[in-house]
This record gives sequence, structure tokens and C-alpha cells, in this order.
Amino acid sequence: SCVDSSTGATPSEEMNGTGNLMDFLDEPFPDVGTYEDFHTIDWLREKSRDTDRHRKITTKSKESYWELIKSLLDAWSGWVVMLLIGMLTGTLAGVIDLAVDWMTDLKEGVCLSALYYSREQCCWTSNETTFEDRDKCPQWQKWAELMTGHSEGAGAYVLNYFLYVLWALLFSFLAVSLVRVFAPYACGSGIPEIKTILSGFIIRGYLGKWTLLIKTVTLVLAVSSGLSLGKEGPLVHVACCCGNLFCSLFSKYSKNEGKRREVLSAAAAAGVSVAFGAPIGGVLFSLEEVSYYFPLKTLWRSFFAALVAAFTLRAINPFGNSRLVLFYVEYHTPWYMAELVPFILLGVFGGLWGALFIRGNIAWCRRRKTTLLGKYPVLEVIVITGITAVLAFPNPYTRRSTSELISELFNDCGALESSQLCDYVNNPNMSRPVDDIPDRPAGPGVYSALWQLALALIFKIVITIFTFGMKIPSGLFIPSMAVGAIAGRIVGIAVEQMAYHHHDWIIFKNWCRPGADCVTPGLYAMVGAAACLGGVTRMTVSLVVIMFELTGGLEYIVPLMAAAVTSKWVADAFGKEGIYESHIQLNGYPYLDVRDEFTHRTLATDVMRPRRSEPPLAVLTQDSTTVEDVETLIKDTDYNGFPVVVSRESERLIGFVQRRELTVAIKTARQKQDGVVSSSVVYFTEDNPQVAEACDPQPLKLRRILNLSPFTVTDHTPMETVVDIFRKLGLRQCLVTRSGRLLGIITKKDVLRHMAQMMNQDPESIMFN
Amino acid sequence: SCVDSSTGATPSEEMNGTGNLMDFLDEPFPDVGTYEDFHTIDWLREKSRDTDRHRKITTKSKESYWELIKSLLDAWSGWVVMLLIGMLTGTLAGVIDLAVDWMTDLKEGVCLSALYYSREQCCWTSNETTFEDRDKCPQWQKWAELMTGHSEGAGAYVLNYFLYVLWALLFSFLAVSLVRVFAPYACGSGIPEIKTILSGFIIRGYLGKWTLLIKTVTLVLAVSSGLSLGKEGPLVHVACCCGNLFCSLFSKYSKNEGKRREVLSAAAAAGVSVAFGAPIGGVLFSLEEVSYYFPLKTLWRSFFAALVAAFTLRAINPFGNSRLVLFYVEYHTPWYMAELVPFILLGVFGGLWGALFIRGNIAWCRRRKTTLLGKYPVLEVIVITGITAVLAFPNPYTRRSTSELISELFNDCGALESSQLCDYVNNPNMSRPVDDIPDRPAGPGVYSALWQLALALIFKIVITIFTFGMKIPSGLFIPSMAVGAIAGRIVGIAVEQMAYHHHDWIIFKNWCRPGADCVTPGLYAMVGAAACLGGVTRMTVSLVVIMFELTGGLEYIVPLMAAAVTSKWVADAFGKEGIYESHIQLNGYPYLDVRDEFTHRTLATDVMRPRRSEPPLAVLTQDSTTVEDVETLIKDTDYNGFPVVVSRESERLIGFVQRRELTVAIKTARQKQDGVVSSSVVYFTEDNPQVAEACDPQPLKLRRILNLSPFTVTDHTPMETVVDIFRKLGLRQCLVTRSGRLLGIITKKDVLRHMAQMMNQDPESIMFN
Repeated sequence: SCVDSSTGATPSEEMNGTGNLMDFLDEPFPDVGTYEDFHTIDWLREKSRDTDRHRKITTKSKESYWELIKSLLDAWSGWVVMLLIGMLTGTLAGVIDLAVDWMTDLKEGVCLSALYYSREQCCWTSNETTFEDRDKCPQWQKWAELMTGHSEGAGAYVLNYFLYVLWALLFSFLAVSLVRVFAPYACGSGIPEIKTILSGFIIRGYLGKWTLLIKTVTLVLAVSSGLSLGKEGPLVHVACCCGNLFCSLFSKYSKNEGKRREVLSAAAAAGVSVAFGAPIGGVLFSLEEVSYYFPLKTLWRSFFAALVAAFTLRAINPFGNSRLVLFYVEYHTPWYMAELVPFILLGVFGGLWGALFIRGNIAWCRRRKTTLLGKYPVLEVIVITGITAVLAFPNPYTRRSTSELISELFNDCGALESSQLCDYVNNPNMSRPVDDIPDRPAGPGVYSALWQLALALIFKIVITIFTFGMKIPSGLFIPSMAVGAIAGRIVGIAVEQMAYHHHDWIIFKNWCRPGADCVTPGLYAMVGAAACLGGVTRMTVSLVVIMFELTGGLEYIVPLMAAAVTSKWVADAFGKEGIYESHIQLNGYPYLDVRDEFTHRTLATDVMRPRRSEPPLAVLTQDSTTVEDVETLIKDTDYNGFPVVVSRESERLIGFVQRRELTVAIKTARQKQDGVVSSSVVYFTEDNPQVAEACDPQPLKLRRILNLSPFTVTDHTPMETVVDIFRKLGLRQCLVTRSGRLLGIITKKDVLRHMAQMMNQDPESIMFN
Repeated sequence: SCVDSSTGATPSEEMNGTGNLMDFLDEPFPDVGTYEDFHTIDWLREKSRDTDRHRKITTKSKESYWELIKSLLDAWSGWVVMLLIGMLTGTLAGVIDLAVDWMTDLKEGVCLSALYYSREQCCWTSNETTFEDRDKCPQWQKWAELMTGHSEGAGAYVLNYFLYVLWALLFSFLAVSLVRVFAPYACGSGIPEIKTILSGFIIRGYLGKWTLLIKTVTLVLAVSSGLSLGKEGPLVHVACCCGNLFCSLFSKYSKNEGKRREVLSAAAAAGVSVAFGAPIGGVLFSLEEVSYYFPLKTLWRSFFAALVAAFTLRAINPFGNSRLVLFYVEYHTPWYMAELVPFILLGVFGGLWGALFIRGNIAWCRRRKTTLLGKYPVLEVIVITGITAVLAFPNPYTRRSTSELISELFNDCGALESSQLCDYVNNPNMSRPVDDIPDRPAGPGVYSALWQLALALIFKIVITIFTFGMKIPSGLFIPSMAVGAIAGRIVGIAVEQMAYHHHDWIIFKNWCRPGADCVTPGLYAMVGAAACLGGVTRMTVSLVVIMFELTGGLEYIVPLMAAAVTSKWVADAFGKEGIYESHIQLNGYPYLDVRDEFTHRTLATDVMRPRRSEPPLAVLTQDSTTVEDVETLIKDTDYNGFPVVVSRESERLIGFVQRRELTVAIKTARQKQDGVVSSSVVYFTEDNPQVAEACDPQPLKLRRILNLSPFTVTDHTPMETVVDIFRKLGLRQCLVTRSGRLLGIITKKDVLRHMAQMMNQDPESIMFN
């Protein structure tokens, strides 16, 4: 949605337009060897160009010491790029964390001792407070207190409320304006587009310097405004921008779109690594969710980049606790088999939420694309921010930042915990152990917290559907996790109280003696968060590993896995695509999903162009076309390239020539080569064609621009094999032959269009053949 | 080496034999749809067969509820298989651990209270011992004590020594005999063969029930005999046997070699998971090191199988400590930047050891293959066991089992540690804190331990080279880790003592104040172990993740990574291949490594058969070959299949027909179809050929056995692209055309032969074209 607003010819229009035959191949002429915007790269060609480059360097390195050093530097450049990406990503993540902390608190008040301190920093440095009320230090003043001197009362409340909404509106207005004016690509989470780019699509400027700068700034503003969005997805985009930035330092990466994508895959891993403090999870996320071509070399480098990023972030230490992870939790009791039932129920909830969210969000985004709504993005952001802020302020669980909320929900109620959620009725006889507190009856604080949490849950569920996809940076991880964590905590407290009050019930009898600490509501929150995140994104291994890295123990991996599996299955029952794939489809990006299994019975001949009713394929002959013929063909068609055959009668394929190279070659020859005129014969053979008469003009040899190894399949090849070939080899087009005769062409776009057709209208399409 | 002793036609002979043209395609006729032993599967065909099967089930499932349930069961069968594999693998691993424990101790003595108790269990259940001397409980008696009544003195020592050697010889003799008699495939680590199998090769019986049973039993015997080998590699083989076993329960897996390999990949992950108690590391090991085709679905299932296996093992609890991991360590002090220098030196050592080990071991294995040595495998095992036992007994660090040794070397010296390695001079004024003991001067115990460790290091280095590759199950992980851990501990103690005695040196000044605990020798042992393991296997991510799961904290990941990277680079400088790839090469398995980059400039035309001097390609024509011609062709050649062309003049390719199917079809037609005689024309077209005269015999239509979509490339295709295609699509053969004319064929074997040629004799081969 970010992409198509900024360009005349959107990819979705391109995809749906059926006017042009093979319109996917229509490329104008930028520098040779590069690709035009919104076009697909040729993976095989990029790979073979890199091998050539490598071969050249290896040969040269034997000539002199200087060349040897240069070749070593070249070999090392990959690691250098990873180091730089890791360091910059970690630094940016730290800066974003600090800025968000400060600005989130700015909505409520200000630190008098130093204006740039967040509340925690402000009160932490103050020595006048005791541990118990460390949040109520005198240096930190709410706006009403500062302006009127009164910190209590209706007047102060209203003033604080008003200023809270005002700040939120200011932040989000700034964010959306910056995005609109400076970098339209900076909006959204960016992951759908990055997936598309990594699969071999070109979106110029999407990973540019401006996008990097603006996305970083507006991300801070958007998160601080209190909207229901997170910073995790956009951090992946920011990391990929860093990756692209450092690619430009080395021609090895900047001049090869294939190699560049290896770096970007690693950068995505670094992004997730800093988002959660989970380097291994980041690498697996990149492997499972984002990347397309992920060789083992990239795995190792991604891991390096992710680690560097995580340790850079830790060195900055934005949370002030030397922890690597975003939500550090430590539970003191194991879980019991019977608890798997509520965990699986949470998985079902997560799956339902995921399916609901995807449907609702996609329907809303489609409406935004097609109605007047899309014309007023600034107004939309302002209105949603207003509603969010107005509804969020009264409820303490929505007023604070979402990651603080999740953090509190994940927490186990230790003895020193002062939060409302831990307001249990303590046994007065009990000495105060630090850990391992037995289950206690809930106090009034817990009951009121439950009500507020229930309201917060409904609020988050509804508002997130409308928030994701607006023209500001917006991640999905945190809101999804929040929904799950709230639901999980509610379920957890319910189970805990049931176990306390009914420990004679058969299900509790075996594992929950009175006076034991048997239920950890924080764990339920964590399981719920995993379930909801899984339902929305359909991550599996990476999700469990990220959660595992948060808790740091294998102990709780089974509950997490049970919830993640259930949630994925439930959500899959309502639609196979996760939110990112749905947005890719909505925007019509040419993305060939590795996971979609194509199981239909169609053949290459059903998909190839030209179809029966269409004019024959535009081809060149190897030695009987004149310069004028070629020029006419280029003018009349807009195909990206032309097959070359021996003769129109035999239709024996000898190669494929790119439109761009053909144009350049003829233009150059006309200017520089004597005797080349309109009636000159163009030939692609090794030997001169036999010139019929002596007075015929000089022929033009173009063999050097002919690709002698075009990819071919026979017309009887099952489409499932063709799809596999396109996917695994990263082709742009493939020629179709029958008994050595050229019949037609299949482009990546034809494949995608066919797949979409087969998925949606199954029976008719099969009839159709 | 296990494989070729058991079969007449070894794959290595097949590979080296150049007598037959395209001998790789020579397949006799087993059941249709299966493959012959020592042949390669066709991944594309397997995939398309599975899609067909799936399509059939989906269509049927709409017919009735019963079919719907069947289709659901089919969809679930993958998970069921994973569950079963995980449970069986975990159980077997637990049983192996218990048995090894008991039998290792049996070499030294016996538990009087219960003969089936190992020493630890024996003394643990005894209440008469104090914590301090829990290893010297009265129930546990050494052999000499039991037989003569004296536990001290030269006589007792000699008797113990003698019985130790005797038990070792007995165990290893039993092991090698069982392997020889019942399951020759049970020897070795199995990982090279599993890699080859997963890449699409068939070795019948390698993963059979007998192999499973015998490998499990002999693994226990081999490890207990005290030889320098580990159980980790063979556990992967055992897990894959379990995988294969459970595949046979479901036709989905047993009848499809491609699907079966997905299950085997997951089983390999389960194997490593139980070997180290590291499920994530296991999955990454399978992905990085073992697997060939690893779709995302397999990733998720592997993770599940690995987790189930790990938790089953924990439920059995063989180590009696509820820990999941093999070596649980907990360090109390962080590491300092300056320590990276010794860590990197350990990396260099690991790389050198890896390179030395691979060279030495391969040279020795080659000698075993080519000289008389290979004729006496039992004698070889007996001799090596004898030498090992005689040399190992006097040194306490080699007498115990290698994993106990590693465990002790990894350990931090806590206050309660009574081992010789922790014999530091304590400050008498110091109160005894449990953790965080400051650096202390080494006592006499440490110095004598250092000498013994140095001797143990040399012993392990030498003996492991000769042990790996004998005809008993033998893993490499544990001996490699032992070498590294010993070296690491020695370096660690040296650095610690240097830091203690010279804390005014500039390098120590900044981080090591007197009285502080700054060096953890156990961490050095761990880093050394990672370095040596990395040098031998060239694992990277999976190695670091396995080590990370052992320590359970990200804290020590940087030292581990520094050592692993250094070790890989150093070892790569001496030869790109790890030990597994070297053994694959030594045995000549047709393995197309995903990691080898083919960077030479050759073209398909340089590799294809027939070469210029050879007779033309054997082809069939679409409508002018007689039954007799076909039968002659089948008799005279042993190719696996024949291309079908329109006519010999035009050489237009229309398809490819398998030898086996051709034979069966003609035989059936001769028996059952009237009018088919030797002079009948065989035709592959859709319409009957025009019969010249009315009296001509009935023609035979064979279109249904014709593969209409054979894979083709042009003769100008660079070999680097061809290699890529073979690798990514898993082809067996590929036809070569020029301008629609069939020129030749390239088989997987041709590709491998060409690659081997280019790697070894670079300049000549390039000249050669």
C-alpha cells in the first residue's frame, strides 16, 4: 500500500492489466546490466555475472601482490558489510528505544532535573525516593502539576487528558507529514515489500537513504504517539536499508542484484535480532519468513550480523538492565500436563484472532485503496490517533506503551511486585520469601485489573485492524503480542483462582496441593502472545525460538509450541496466507511463494503465450531479418526480448536476445559501422550469411548479444514442474518448444497469473483446458 | 568404507570405471517406480508422483466422510511419524546412555548391592558415604578388591590393569564380530552415507532394521570398550534408521523416495538433539550439515521431532540430574576482550588439528582400502583396542570415559569441587563462598594434572586418527571435543596463573585486579572443544548453537564464535572439505555438494556424451523403429533410457523413454497384444503411422511410457548453470540440444566426474576444451 501511491504505473495495475501481451517483459533502457524499477531480476544471470567477476579476480590475484591483497579484501568484504550492518542496526535500535521511551513519557509529564530524561531515568537517578514508590519521584511532574500546581482533582485529570491527546496528535501528524513529504516508502511495516524485493523484484528507493532516515524518525514518532503499533517490523526495514547503504560501498554487492539480496537477508536477521534481542530467532525468521534465496554462506553471515547487532544494542543498554532481550522473564514453577488444555485454547484464540485480523485488515485496506478514504491519509492518521488517545487514556493498561504492558503481563508476581495485577490477599502468617510464593486468592486490585484488561483487549483488537496499513511506519508484532498477552493473563488468573478455590477438583488434585505455587499467569500471557503472533504471521520455528530466547530455558518450549501449532492450524483453516502474504497479494506484487504448493494438472501449453486466438510469437530469424525489420519490431511491440530462430519455417530455436541490448547494438552500428543501412541483414550465426548479390549492403553481426542458452521446456511439461523451475532457478522467462520447434513463451507474470487463477476458480479453470 | 566391503559392485568402482558409457544409468528392472541399489533418484519425478497422490486423495475426500477422514489421517501422518521417531530415538539414546555408563564402570569394578548399577548409581543410593568421598562407597568394589580382598598395592593395580584391558578387548571383539556377521552397514559414524542418501542416492539396507539393532548394541560395546570414539555420529545413524522404520508404516513415505528423505532429515535432527540435548542445534545441524532438500515444512517437523526426542530422553533421565544437555555448565564470571587472543589461538589450534586429522585419517583409510590391512578388520580393532587400553589405564584422564573427561574439563572450579584439577592453594583467611572464588595459585594437584593432560592430549590426537573408520560404530564429535577441551583447559590454567602471578602486566592490569575471579579455565576448555569440532566438521552456525544450548546464555557466544570462525578459516586453508565430505570422496559416492561453487568456464558441450570420438547417441525414432530394433538396442547397450526423436535426419527431440519401462511394455505387448511381432513398428506419436502396405504387421503404440517433458539445455549453456540445475532440481540426466537438434546427454555422474576433474587438474582441463 505504501508503494502504489507513489508511482504512476503500480505493480498491481501492471499485474491486472491484460492489454499488453507479455507486458512483464517491457523494460526501457537504463544502464546495461541493471534493471528497471518494478521489474524482476534474472537470478541465473546475476549468479553467472558474479562467477565471472570472481574468476577475473582469482586470475588477476596470481599476477602481483597488490592484486592478491585486493582479492583478499574482496573476499573479506562480505564480513565487513555484516559488521557494519550489525553495528549501525544496533545503534539505530538503541537510539529508537531511548527516543521512544522519552517521548512516550513526554505525553504525560516532564523531568525537571533534565528535560531529556524519561520518567524511569528521572526517578532512577533521584535519591529521594524509596524503592516502593520509585515512580512518584518529585523531579518527575505531570503536566497538570507543572502548569497548575495541583496534581490531583478533576481539573488536573482533564488537563492531563487533554495534553495527552494533544501530544499524541502532534506526534502522529508529524510522522504522517514527514512520510508524505519526504519518503512515501517509509510507511507500513515493510516486510511484505522486503519479501518481494528479496524474491527478485526491484523497487527503487525502497531501501534508500531517505527512507532509512525518515523511517527511523517517523517510527519514533508513531510509536510514541501511542497508536496500536510496534517497532519490530519497521526495524527489519530499517536494517535492510542499512544493508543496502553498505552494499553501495562495495561494487561486489552494489553491482549485483543477486549478491545484494544475500546481504539484505542477513540485514533482516539483524533487524529481528535487535527487535527482540534474539539473534538465533532473527536468523531463523529471515530464513523462514523473509528470505527467498538463502544459501548456507548467508546463514553464517546472518548469524554474525545478528550477533553484532545484538551486542551493539546491549552496549548502548537502552533499557538500563544489561539484558539483551526485550521482555526478560524468569518463572519459578514448572508447568503441568493439565495446563496444556488452556494453552491449546489460547492457541485456538490466537488462530481465530489471526484469521479475523487478516480478514478485517485486508478488507479495510482494500476499501482504503478503492474509495475516497485513500485520498486523505493525513486525516485518517489524525482521526485514528485521536480515537486511540481518547479511548486509551482512561485505562491504565492502554495508556502506557504497549511493550511496557506486555512486559508487565509476562511478569511473574514476585514478593516485591507492587503492580495492581499482583494485588493478592497475602496470608499474614506467611514470611516473605522472594520467590516461590504459593497461590493466593486474588485481591480487589486483581479484579479491577481484570475488568480493565478485558476492556483493553476489545479496544486493541478493534483499533489494530484499522491502524495497520496507515501511512506511517507500523509493526504488527507488538499489538498482536499484546492482544495475546492480555487474553493469556486473563485465562491464567482464572485458572489460578480456580485451582486455589477448588483444589479438590479432580483436574487440580494431582498437581496443585493447597499452599503450592502451581499456576504462573505470566506464562499464560507469554503463550497467548506466541499464539496470536503465530496466528497473524504464521511463523513457526522462528516464533518458538524467539520466545525461547526470551525465557532462556527449554522448560517452557512445549507450551509455546503447542500454542503455536494450534494457532497456525486454526488460522490456516480460514485461509492459508499470513498477513504479509495477504498484503503482497493485495498490492499485486509478483511474488512466487516458496510455500504454495501448486497441485493442478495444467501443462506448459495451457499457460504459454501466444494463446490460440492471439497473433504468433514475435521472433527474429538468424540470418534473414533486416535492420529495418528489427526496428519496426521494436517499435511495434514492447516485449523485453525476442527469441531467435533458424527460420520461420523450421522454428528451430537458437537463442534469445534482450530488447535493450538489441536497440543499443543497432543504434551503435548505425552510427559507427560503415555500410549498415536499413536494408542490411542482421545475422546471429557465426559465419556471414551468403549474400545473394554483390551490391547488397554490409550485413550486421549480432551474435555477441545473443543469449545462446535460453531456458526451454516442452509444451507437455506439467505446470507444477514449471513453477518449481521458476522458483528454484529464479527465472524471468522460459521458452516453450515441441519437438524442437519454438511454440511460445512463459514469463514469471504468466506463471503468477495462472497460479492465482487456479487457486481462486478451481473447477472452471480446469474445464477451460 | 562400511559400504563397499559388503557389496560386489561398489559405488567407488562404479564411479571410477570408465568402461561403460553412461554407466550411471544402468538400472535393471525392479518393481516399477522404485530404484535399484546404488542408484540415484529423480527428485522431480518423486515430487510429481507425490503431487498426483495428493491430488487423488483430495479429489476422493469430497466423495464421502470416510474418504475425508482418510485424507485427514494422511495429512496428519507426517506428524505421527515425527512423534514416533522422536520417542524411539529418545528412548534408544537413554538406553544407550545407561548401558554405556554401566559397562564403562564394569571395566573397573562392580556394584555389590545391585549388579546392574553403575558406580555413580551404586554410590548415590548408598547412605553410608559422605558427600566428600561419594566415589569411594563400600558397595562399589574394584575387581582386585573383590577377588583378592586387597584394594591397594602393586598386585591389586596389576590385576585391575589386566582386567581393564581384558574387558576392553572383550567389548570391542563383540562389537566388531556383531558388525561383521549381522550388519556390515552398522560401522563408522554413518554421517557421510546419510548425507549421500539424503542427496538422493539409494543404499539398500543402510537404514534397515538389522542395522538399527546391531548399531545400537555395538555402539554401546564400542563406547564402553574405551576406544577413542563417541556416540554422537552413530546416534544420527540410529535416528535415521528409526525414521526409515516408521516410514514403512505409511505408504506416503515408504513409496516415495523424496518424501522419505524429508522424514530422514528430521530424524537426523532428532539424533543430534538427543546426542547433545540441543534441539535447536540439532535442527540447524540437519539443515547445515546433513540435508540436501530441506523445505520449510521439514524445518518445522524436524524441530518437533527434535523436541520430542529431547523430552523423551529427559523423562528417562539417564544422567540422573534432570538436565537436558550432555555437558551442563554454569560460569560465574564474564569474559574480557583481552581473552579473545587465547580464544583465537585455540581456534588456530582447532583448525590445525582438524586439517591434520582429516589428512591423517584419510591417508590411513586409503591405506586400509588398498593394502592387506583391510582384510583383517577384527584383528585391527583388537590391536587398536589393546593399545588404547594399555596406554589409557595409567592416566586417570584417559582411563575414564571421554564424556566424563570433557565434563570435568568444562567445569568451573567451585568451592565444593574435589577434583585434582581444582587443587588450588586456598587463602586460609578466606571464608568459603559457593561461587565467585577469586583466582588462586595452582597447587601441586593442578601441576600434576597438567602433565597428565598433556600426555592425554598427545595420546588422543594420535589414537583418534587410527580409530575413526574401523569396522565398529565410531563417532567423531566426542574425541574431537576432548582434544580441544584438554588443549583449552591447559591454556586456560596457564592464562589464569599468569594473570594471578603477574597482575601488574599491562594486559592484565585493566581487567584482573588481585583477589578477583577473572579467568575461567572451563570456558577455555569449551572454546577449545568448539574449535576442534569446527576444524574437523566445518560446522558453523549449528556448532555455535549447540554450544550455546549447553551453556544456556548468550554471554559466551562471542568467544565460541571467534574460535569457530578462526578454526574454520585455518582448516579451510589446508583443504576445503570437512571430514564427512572427505570420506564421501574417498568412497566415491555420487554426492553433489551444495556448497562447492563451480567456477570454471566449461560449457555443456564439453561434458556431454557422446564425445567426438565415440559412437553416436543411441536414440529411438518416433515412428520408424521396429520391435526388433528396440530389443537389439536394449540388448546391446546398458543405458538407463533412450531419447526419442522425430527422425534420425531431423534429430528433433520429442521425449525420453526409460529402459525399464520400454522392456516391460514390449514384453507385455508380445505376450498379450495380437499381431505384435518383431517387425512391428513401435511408435510414440498420437496417431498411427501411415502403414505402407496392408500386409504390414500391427504397429505398437508406446506413447504412454514416453516422458514428454525431458529436461534439456543448449550446448552453449555454461556448466556452472548446468551444475546449478542438477543441484536445485535434483536431476538424474539432462539432454543437450543445439537449435532444436538433439546432440547428447549429461548424467549426474558426468557432472560429478567433470567437477572432480576441474577441481584437481585445473589448468590442463581448461586447455582441454
